[in-house]
Amino acid sequence: MHSIPLAATAAIATTFAGIALADDDLRAQELREDAQYMFEPIPLSMPDMPNNILSTDRIALGTMLFFDPRMSRSGVFSCHSCHNVGIGGADGLEVSIGHGWQKGPRNSPTVFNAVFNIAQFWDGRAADLAEQAEGPVQAGVEMNNTPDRVLDTLASMQGYVDAFATAFPGEDDPITFRNFALAIEAFEATLTTPNSRFDQYLMGADTLDDQELRGLSAFMDQGCASCHAGVNMGGQEYYPFGLVERPGADVLPAGDRGRFAVTATVADDYVFRAAPLRNIALTAPYFHSGVVWSLEEAVAVMGVSQLGAELDEAEIADIAAFLRTLTGEIPQVTHPVLPVRSATTPLPEDM
Amino acid sequence: MHSIPLAATAAIATTFAGIALADDDLRAQELREDAQYMFEPIPLSMPDMPNNILSTDRIALGTMLFFDPRMSRSGVFSCHSCHNVGIGGADGLEVSIGHGWQKGPRNSPTVFNAVFNIAQFWDGRAADLAEQAEGPVQAGVEMNNTPDRVLDTLASMQGYVDAFATAFPGEDDPITFRNFALAIEAFEATLTTPNSRFDQYLMGADTLDDQELRGLSAFMDQGCASCHAGVNMGGQEYYPFGLVERPGADVLPAGDRGRFAVTATVADDYVFRAAPLRNIALTAPYFHSGVVWSLEEAVAVMGVSQLGAELDEAEIADIAAFLRTLTGEIPQVTHPVLPVRSATTPLPEDM
Repeated sequence: MHSIPLAATAAIATTFAGIALADDDLRAQELREDAQYMFEPIPLSMPDMPNNILSTDRIALGTMLFFDPRMSRSGVFSCHSCHNVGIGGADGLEVSIGHGWQKGPRNSPTVFNAVFNIAQFWDGRAADLAEQAEGPVQAGVEMNNTPDRVLDTLASMQGYVDAFATAFPGEDDPITFRNFALAIEAFEATLTTPNSRFDQYLMGADTLDDQELRGLSAFMDQGCASCHAGVNMGGQEYYPFGLVERPGADVLPAGDRGRFAVTATVADDYVFRAAPLRNIALTAPYFHSGVVWSLEEAVAVMGVSQLGAELDEAEIADIAAFLRTLTGEIPQVTHPVLPVRSATTPLPEDM
Repeated sequence: MHSIPLAATAAIATTFAGIALADDDLRAQELREDAQYMFEPIPLSMPDMPNNILSTDRIALGTMLFFDPRMSRSGVFSCHSCHNVGIGGADGLEVSIGHGWQKGPRNSPTVFNAVFNIAQFWDGRAADLAEQAEGPVQAGVEMNNTPDRVLDTLASMQGYVDAFATAFPGEDDPITFRNFALAIEAFEATLTTPNSRFDQYLMGADTLDDQELRGLSAFMDQGCASCHAGVNMGGQEYYPFGLVERPGADVLPAGDRGRFAVTATVADDYVFRAAPLRNIALTAPYFHSGVVWSLEEAVAVMGVSQLGAELDEAEIADIAAFLRTLTGEIPQVTHPVLPVRSATTPLPEDM
């Protein structure tokens, strides 16, 4: 123990530390490169939309429609009721509450960065945000309206008549249900959250601490990134919930067979779109069933059901810490002043 | 018919027109002076509050609380649900829908300029906006929460812990139900709507057209201004609904005896606070019962019930046209980003 003089011990320790640091640097560089290969930062500019024009006028109209509870039959619910821009673009409920206090079938997915998903809804049954926007307004358990009644409502208010005319220039009859949906899509396309700490890390900044870096490493090594990759860290592909081991009926209710309802294919039984993980720290509760409130518990469930891995407590904590770095800059939305009703505006119903 | 030469006729006409114009000018000046005596423009600056401090931090906290649906037991309703800043500060419903799809007892009054009312609620049972704010959050048919559960919710989120500390500096335990109410009041005090066309007229501009001026004149001559005067054109005194003739049970339901429930005094039977008329064009439907959707019909009902006057159609149209000049500049509100829940945040209940 005492055969090496103190000075020499210190020299050896320095050398060891030097080697260790070099190794750490190398590993850190590899980790960042792996991450850059698997993931992509949220872009700063709005995406190009193949079927829509993101003009200022169209976005302004979409903002009005998104926040207008008169788009629902009762006059109580708007898109914003379940996709609250103050609560991570979701509603913080197990499943949403809609018309007549009915429960919706699934947890409300965030509208933030939804423009980057390959398709919309948990089962991907809508090709894009415009197609999605036509759904809840008609769903009996959500806004319970009809396209005709929506159009009657819009046409009855001069403010909407003018706004549709400027948002869809050159159209003889701009107030259509398709244009209603396109305007909402245009607004929703603005709801992106760039510059999360993880995105800054991907761009070369040292914004993650040791635990978060261990979490990132585990996220890739354990295979989470196989499904949760790309710009939205998910939202691109469909997988059976219970790829390795089906979770209990509390988390995966037997009555909701996911994408099977869309494709009627046995291979799609209990298949859902891998959830995008952007801003996941803001959007509890988790899963389509919305029964899991803790991010750590959600990570543990995923480990067992999708990877067949009993993650230990430290690893779960690391991955959860990493996931909390995915919170981006939240869009600042000025609440729109909505058009004034007229004598021909349909009255609220079913109250 | 032809005894006066054409040139002479023209000269006489000019003279007559000159006299008529002079008379008109005089009448116009008198009308404006009468109006300036009866009414007051909405001030540009926030009012001083005797029991509150309108600091930026307190207003910011109040904005969060006002928009946060987690202040309700279910997590569905916020103050903003029934006092929508996009719909004239009200909800456009006959009566509001609350917890469990229950109907509230009365039409939601606008939050805009409510700071100028002598007291809050249709029956004036709350002395100020802070006292008012403590009501709906606890009402079983509205947000159905309890003060303790609200405080537990607030204390569970670091964002609220920090925001209360900065909004109420120097307090050892800033998260109190009273401070919750004071912060909401501070935000609501910012929701004023200056510079309506009528206010600009009061300040000397010629912003009203002939019909609107006739309407203003009738509004004062018929006696409407006896109850609807001052800065808020109402909101200052209590009067029986049916001062001259009690309206039918559709407009004045027998079960709601108004201020009688507050004072238990027979003189207060069916007594309500005169509604403030600011932005009245934005806040249909009308009256505490919310059953009248047309401003013209509301004017007619008031004529009969409060003044004993069967106003003719032209006069009703004139008064309604005048009332539409009371729409001011609507406050621009940026939707707040709300604090993130934690493991100790109470879960939504009763869904």
